[in-house]
Amino acid sequence: MAGTVKIFDTTLRDGTQGEGVSLSVEDKLKIAQKLDALGVSYIEGGWPGSNNKDIEFFMRVKELKLSHAKITAFGSTRRKETLAENDPNLNRILEVGVQAAAIFGKSWDFQVHTAIQTTLEENLAMIYDSVRFLKKNGLEVIYDAEHFFDGYKSNPEYALATIKKAEEAGADWIALCDTNGGTLPHEISAIVTKVTSLISCPIGIHAHNDCELGVANSLAAVMAGARQVQGTINGYGERCGNANLVSVVPNLQLKLKYDVISAEQLASLSTVARYVSEIANMHMPVNQPYVGSAAFAHKGGIHVSAILRDSSTYEHIKPELVGNKQRVLVSELAGQSNLVFKTQELGLDFDTNNQQTKQLIEQIKEMEHQGYQFEGADATLELLIRDAYGKLDEVFTLDSFKIMVAKSADQPVLSEAIVKVNVHGKTIYNAAEGNGPVNALDNALRKCLVEYYPDINNMHLSDYKVRVLDEKDTTAAKVRVLIESTDFNSTWSTVGVSENIIEASWHALVDSIRYALLGMTRVADKPEESRERLGLVNH
Amino acid sequence: MAGTVKIFDTTLRDGTQGEGVSLSVEDKLKIAQKLDALGVSYIEGGWPGSNNKDIEFFMRVKELKLSHAKITAFGSTRRKETLAENDPNLNRILEVGVQAAAIFGKSWDFQVHTAIQTTLEENLAMIYDSVRFLKKNGLEVIYDAEHFFDGYKSNPEYALATIKKAEEAGADWIALCDTNGGTLPHEISAIVTKVTSLISCPIGIHAHNDCELGVANSLAAVMAGARQVQGTINGYGERCGNANLVSVVPNLQLKLKYDVISAEQLASLSTVARYVSEIANMHMPVNQPYVGSAAFAHKGGIHVSAILRDSSTYEHIKPELVGNKQRVLVSELAGQSNLVFKTQELGLDFDTNNQQTKQLIEQIKEMEHQGYQFEGADATLELLIRDAYGKLDEVFTLDSFKIMVAKSADQPVLSEAIVKVNVHGKTIYNAAEGNGPVNALDNALRKCLVEYYPDINNMHLSDYKVRVLDEKDTTAAKVRVLIESTDFNSTWSTVGVSENIIEASWHALVDSIRYALLGMTRVADKPEESRERLGLVNH
Repeated sequence: MAGTVKIFDTTLRDGTQGEGVSLSVEDKLKIAQKLDALGVSYIEGGWPGSNNKDIEFFMRVKELKLSHAKITAFGSTRRKETLAENDPNLNRILEVGVQAAAIFGKSWDFQVHTAIQTTLEENLAMIYDSVRFLKKNGLEVIYDAEHFFDGYKSNPEYALATIKKAEEAGADWIALCDTNGGTLPHEISAIVTKVTSLISCPIGIHAHNDCELGVANSLAAVMAGARQVQGTINGYGERCGNANLVSVVPNLQLKLKYDVISAEQLASLSTVARYVSEIANMHMPVNQPYVGSAAFAHKGGIHVSAILRDSSTYEHIKPELVGNKQRVLVSELAGQSNLVFKTQELGLDFDTNNQQTKQLIEQIKEMEHQGYQFEGADATLELLIRDAYGKLDEVFTLDSFKIMVAKSADQPVLSEAIVKVNVHGKTIYNAAEGNGPVNALDNALRKCLVEYYPDINNMHLSDYKVRVLDEKDTTAAKVRVLIESTDFNSTWSTVGVSENIIEASWHALVDSIRYALLGMTRVADKPEESRERLGLVNH
Repeated sequence: MAGTVKIFDTTLRDGTQGEGVSLSVEDKLKIAQKLDALGVSYIEGGWPGSNNKDIEFFMRVKELKLSHAKITAFGSTRRKETLAENDPNLNRILEVGVQAAAIFGKSWDFQVHTAIQTTLEENLAMIYDSVRFLKKNGLEVIYDAEHFFDGYKSNPEYALATIKKAEEAGADWIALCDTNGGTLPHEISAIVTKVTSLISCPIGIHAHNDCELGVANSLAAVMAGARQVQGTINGYGERCGNANLVSVVPNLQLKLKYDVISAEQLASLSTVARYVSEIANMHMPVNQPYVGSAAFAHKGGIHVSAILRDSSTYEHIKPELVGNKQRVLVSELAGQSNLVFKTQELGLDFDTNNQQTKQLIEQIKEMEHQGYQFEGADATLELLIRDAYGKLDEVFTLDSFKIMVAKSADQPVLSEAIVKVNVHGKTIYNAAEGNGPVNALDNALRKCLVEYYPDINNMHLSDYKVRVLDEKDTTAAKVRVLIESTDFNSTWSTVGVSENIIEASWHALVDSIRYALLGMTRVADKPEESRERLGLVNH
């Protein structure tokens, strides 16, 4: 091993500066759990001095009992000509009760004059006082040297003086930031080499992607002696984003042989990257390195015949190492590994010679081809598997639905739905209003079912996401609707795909209700009992 | 200047191997003209030995009379145990009448044994004979050493022997290919340094992006002595794509001071990148380095107040150098300074004592409170500001709309919309079908407007995003709809918020059409003229 490198994730702080990225407190808590499981060392959760949403996150994240990652609060050095003890921003960090703080200060003389408009001496005092104050209060302190590389290029003595001040004050880490993302790898390499020869405090790197070099700059810094990499999942972040940890981690671990996370954690990388893109509602590029669905896809005939002989002819690593898989675009075999995993989890015998299994694989291939994706929709996948391996009871069948939406000038929109379903041989017909077409449909369906399934009152939808699949064809394009439901004991997700948003929503809605009414939400808690009850155990 | 670097573009050949990229002959001809104007030295147009579409391209591209770029045909070395003179693939290259040919051959002993299954000696003869044959027939020859870096790492003597053979046969260039994209910059640097010390033929680099290092590897090779870079526009290409020329070129020219293309050509980079993404029908990421619409966008309030003082505080280059522009995103994280910036950009006087300004701030605060977010919706923000500071023409007003969505059992969903609008005092009433309720609405509205505004046919929606704002209340929760539209010259985004997805879509749709029909999409090109025309100049 080449040494250990710690990962400092700032998806929840710097990542949310990216255009189109907006995370609720719930979203942030979900992502924090995934990051912890992935094995990152620090999770920067937000800036408690800047908004109340971030304070709520820090309060609620304590209940999650993370196994490994240190929750870290972000903030700036104290204001000029004040005492650190009186600085509201620094005190807010103490109040939220975190283990670590990342404090940024100025390294570039130009910035000291232009942005904060104070003297070079006062800036040094601001750094020293702020780090010292947090250290005295028992926190681990990461000092983020903002614009360090630009500062070093313009005035190396002063840039070095700022980080020496942080070291003197007891900082545990000094992270060198390429804030504007304009520095090239050979410059990073030379400057980090110089810094590590002068500073004994461990060094981190915080790179941005403005020159499409965020990953390369992070690697260059580590090879020059840095031992912490700051970045975000999928490279989300302001402007062109931060260094993409999803590429940095496998490069460090598989190529440069650093000790970063465990092999099992690395094998969850593709799942984590997709999960975060779903939660953030950001499109994940198919060609994203390591984890994109095309990262190990082969199209050219020559390449395909060569990889059939030996996959290392056109693949730089085994895709399974990062939880991805090989795809041959002419004969797709996607989804099978998910399916193997899921069926094994349900205690079923996944035998590819079995007729049920063959049909199931065909069905899932066809659905994936249509745009279905089961990564964020476990409940839909489970229903498909259970339908294939055993006969599930029919909860209800649809006869028809009609939706009307009408608006006149300045009046609010009126949405109504009429639903006709068949439950245990009886036709039920009902209508309801709603705040929108899908809500009206949901309400009307519930009115039809509640008499037969009073349990339906215990569940409700807790998240609803819409993703356009072929963005070029827009309002006529296919949409994928993801619905998350909860009955207070558990949470499950379902998916529907159609050219029509109403039809896609209907599919996801029906699966969500079926899953609950068939009692499958309790499978997770008592798997054996539920499997038995549902006739899914192999005897 | 650090020297001259030639650009070898393979968007039309390797780029089309990317998942989702498919170009007709017409598309390829259009792109070839843009590439020529951009100043690339070589345009690799396709593989004449592999398909007739590529042959048609080579025949028709001659009529275009390109000013500078050399049209290049791709092909492989001759088949084993045959004569180059009799090789159909090599003869096809001569038949299409190009100035240059790029011929690939094997450098990696493992590949010689596994993929082409011949002896190491025969492979050397295949390289020599093929290059020699094309040179004798008067072509400039680029020898592409496939898998060179993997080959060199496994058997350096043999890898070097293959390129020495190509040099001996008279190759004009030897391009070292990192075919699997698995090599790191420090390895590229060491190997290219070694090769340039042993070979006098000029060296090129062909990198892939599998480790998110395609750009870094291209720069490393140039700094080690390579003088040709192969890549594609926007990094299209197999798996994770090829080296992205849109980032490579400004890095070489602006940062490393190589002579690549002229300053005027560089200033067309953003336009070319967007044009190619439109033609290839690929979504262009907002955060794409240098040319993405968010590449110089600022969200955080602190950053915004600093760039108001000096833009170099948070921008690594002046965006105009690559034909891009600075943008300030208005969002919850930002303060009033973002709005100040936006109004200044429009040439308006942002005076907080002014009654119009006070009302505008109140209105935006109220809308943000309702769930509006303007960071991804510049056009809606601009309409609000212009409405506040000057009276904009009314394009049309809504009388009413009605939408019907119906589904019976296994039938597909039917969506219809009826729209009644008022244009210049006349009531227009029209109906249309669609693939979903919003598409039906969009279609019906366009049918109403096209007679008065034929320009509406030049714009189309290019992205449609839906986000649920309060996930606790789901299908009854508020939704934010973000629409991106384009008229091929520019792209603009609008937003709508409502509890009803149809109403939210309607707001975004109406803003998108108003923005286009008021001629505001041309403001970016001729700001003064448009401001004047729209009555927005402060006299």
